[in-house]
Amino acid sequence: MFKTKGFAAPAPKAPLAPFQFERRELRDNDVHIEIQYCGVCHSDVHQVRDEWGHGAFPMVPGHEIVGKVLAVGPKVKKFKVGDLAGVGCMVDSCLECRSCKEGLEQYCENGFVGTYNSKEKDGKTPTYGGYSDSIVTREEFCLKISPKLNLAAVAPLLCAGITTYSPLRHWKVSKGQKVGVVGLGGLGHMAVKLANAMGANVVVFTTSASKVEDAKRLGAHEVVISKNLEQMKTHANSFDFIIDTVSAPHDYNLYISLLHRDGNMVLVGLPDKPPELYAGNLIMGRRKLGGSLIGGIAETQEMLDFCAEHNIVSDIEMIPIQKINEAYERMIKSDVKYRFVIDMKSLA
Amino acid sequence: MFKTKGFAAPAPKAPLAPFQFERRELRDNDVHIEIQYCGVCHSDVHQVRDEWGHGAFPMVPGHEIVGKVLAVGPKVKKFKVGDLAGVGCMVDSCLECRSCKEGLEQYCENGFVGTYNSKEKDGKTPTYGGYSDSIVTREEFCLKISPKLNLAAVAPLLCAGITTYSPLRHWKVSKGQKVGVVGLGGLGHMAVKLANAMGANVVVFTTSASKVEDAKRLGAHEVVISKNLEQMKTHANSFDFIIDTVSAPHDYNLYISLLHRDGNMVLVGLPDKPPELYAGNLIMGRRKLGGSLIGGIAETQEMLDFCAEHNIVSDIEMIPIQKINEAYERMIKSDVKYRFVIDMKSLA
Repeated sequence: MFKTKGFAAPAPKAPLAPFQFERRELRDNDVHIEIQYCGVCHSDVHQVRDEWGHGAFPMVPGHEIVGKVLAVGPKVKKFKVGDLAGVGCMVDSCLECRSCKEGLEQYCENGFVGTYNSKEKDGKTPTYGGYSDSIVTREEFCLKISPKLNLAAVAPLLCAGITTYSPLRHWKVSKGQKVGVVGLGGLGHMAVKLANAMGANVVVFTTSASKVEDAKRLGAHEVVISKNLEQMKTHANSFDFIIDTVSAPHDYNLYISLLHRDGNMVLVGLPDKPPELYAGNLIMGRRKLGGSLIGGIAETQEMLDFCAEHNIVSDIEMIPIQKINEAYERMIKSDVKYRFVIDMKSLA
Repeated sequence: MFKTKGFAAPAPKAPLAPFQFERRELRDNDVHIEIQYCGVCHSDVHQVRDEWGHGAFPMVPGHEIVGKVLAVGPKVKKFKVGDLAGVGCMVDSCLECRSCKEGLEQYCENGFVGTYNSKEKDGKTPTYGGYSDSIVTREEFCLKISPKLNLAAVAPLLCAGITTYSPLRHWKVSKGQKVGVVGLGGLGHMAVKLANAMGANVVVFTTSASKVEDAKRLGAHEVVISKNLEQMKTHANSFDFIIDTVSAPHDYNLYISLLHRDGNMVLVGLPDKPPELYAGNLIMGRRKLGGSLIGGIAETQEMLDFCAEHNIVSDIEMIPIQKINEAYERMIKSDVKYRFVIDMKSLA
């Protein structure tokens, strides 16, 4: 067993504090990764505060993990000691159902094993996430990381990156298409960079006039202040695709009416209060509203390779782990551009 | 000008009463049709009662029109005197925009001209619908009707038929797929017959246990009482496609969770109060919720030909036009199996 240092929430809503635990001995196909950086995702806050229910405590959050391989099991083929490696939102799944066989482990029909706040396939061992100095993960759920990119800024690609990349690919966003990005936070700023790199004409919707210049710097061709209904109307019936990254309750109908006929809007944010949906906006243009959950492992690797090729990383603010509770408060106020990343050296 | 007898609502919410008006002289490409039967659509009630606003009165409803050609303009090619012909929800559109060029006149970017409660392309002449003894319509918006089928029972195909056929085709419903039909009314009973003829495994969702046997007679392979949540749950993650024909407010989320990964649910009913939508149900299986509006003219012809080939018509209850106000009251109580059709001989 590997002694591991981390930070955990001892109970729902309690502040995170130092926590020691053990990682399992290496199985034949396991990779032991020294965690150098871990991104801080909004879902970490929701789960630590048990806002989604079923939280298991103590909870070590973190599913945007990058670092260096410390050791590998005898049957590991893709990784060797010293390689860079990453772990995202999943650490296991059945690998046998239709979804897993299609490379869509995130929709595993038997349920994937989350990187934290979940149970291993044995149904009892809790999983602990990336706010810690190392992790042991089966090879199939480890990702290769290019040394070309700033490693700390790669960490958020493992969740924010793949969550936006996967729907952009699945709905076949391509050169010349008009693509809307609702919300400019951790997910939204990645969607802007990725859609821009795919050749789309990117329009950002934000409530904050203060974000206009920054959105353009990130790759938006146009920025619409969503509270300005006149400005919104000038875009009616014009979008091929809109990705909605906002998890605060908001009006979907306003955006759906901006899609042209047969256009698609896709939700990746999860409001805690369900918005009302006017059927007429879907009916009038045969429009579609969909949802998308992270991405499969093969697609996550494809996204990481795409980012290396296009020199795309997240915009980050690095923090020592001792600042994590303060970072949560700032995230809730959207006071971060655009993702906190924990420097795991601070654990030492 | 052709003197025309009909029934109109003289003002919002007023009962329908006899009304005389004139149809235009035949233009080069016009067809003059003696209306033999006209179906009664739920939207007739909504519009007569001005529940959607913008109603123009006096209003002659009716957009499920079948009859015999009385005369044709000199440039008409597809119809000759004595032919059967039909007119559905549209009588004109620009025929030049991208949607019209793709045969999707119902999504005309310049707005189609509705068969009633609309304005001709001149922007001022009101259109009057099929609760009348004849209609003059440009050839492009007239449909060929097979003499093989019971003509009165063909009438509802022009709206209820195409409104359900179009999404079944667009979302590629095919042999062996599991298809849900929510609601067994005018639209729903057509969806059951059509999906069955396309080879789907059809499951009807209804709130009324009294409809179970009838649903099976119409072609359902299974019937689920939607208030029975235990029975609903046994169908979780199993549907390829669900068509929701209900226009009363109801819970979409219950049905969305019955779709398998990448499944589609399509709305053709328009609740006057928007239901709440849980994003999680879309996100968890990359499911999609869409809408669909009637169908294009070419597709309406395809649907009529499909129905002739598969011997499909609507289940109807024939009424004289003098019973129309009573029929509206019964429709509101869902007391009709499954579509009222007006026998226009009663106008004489």
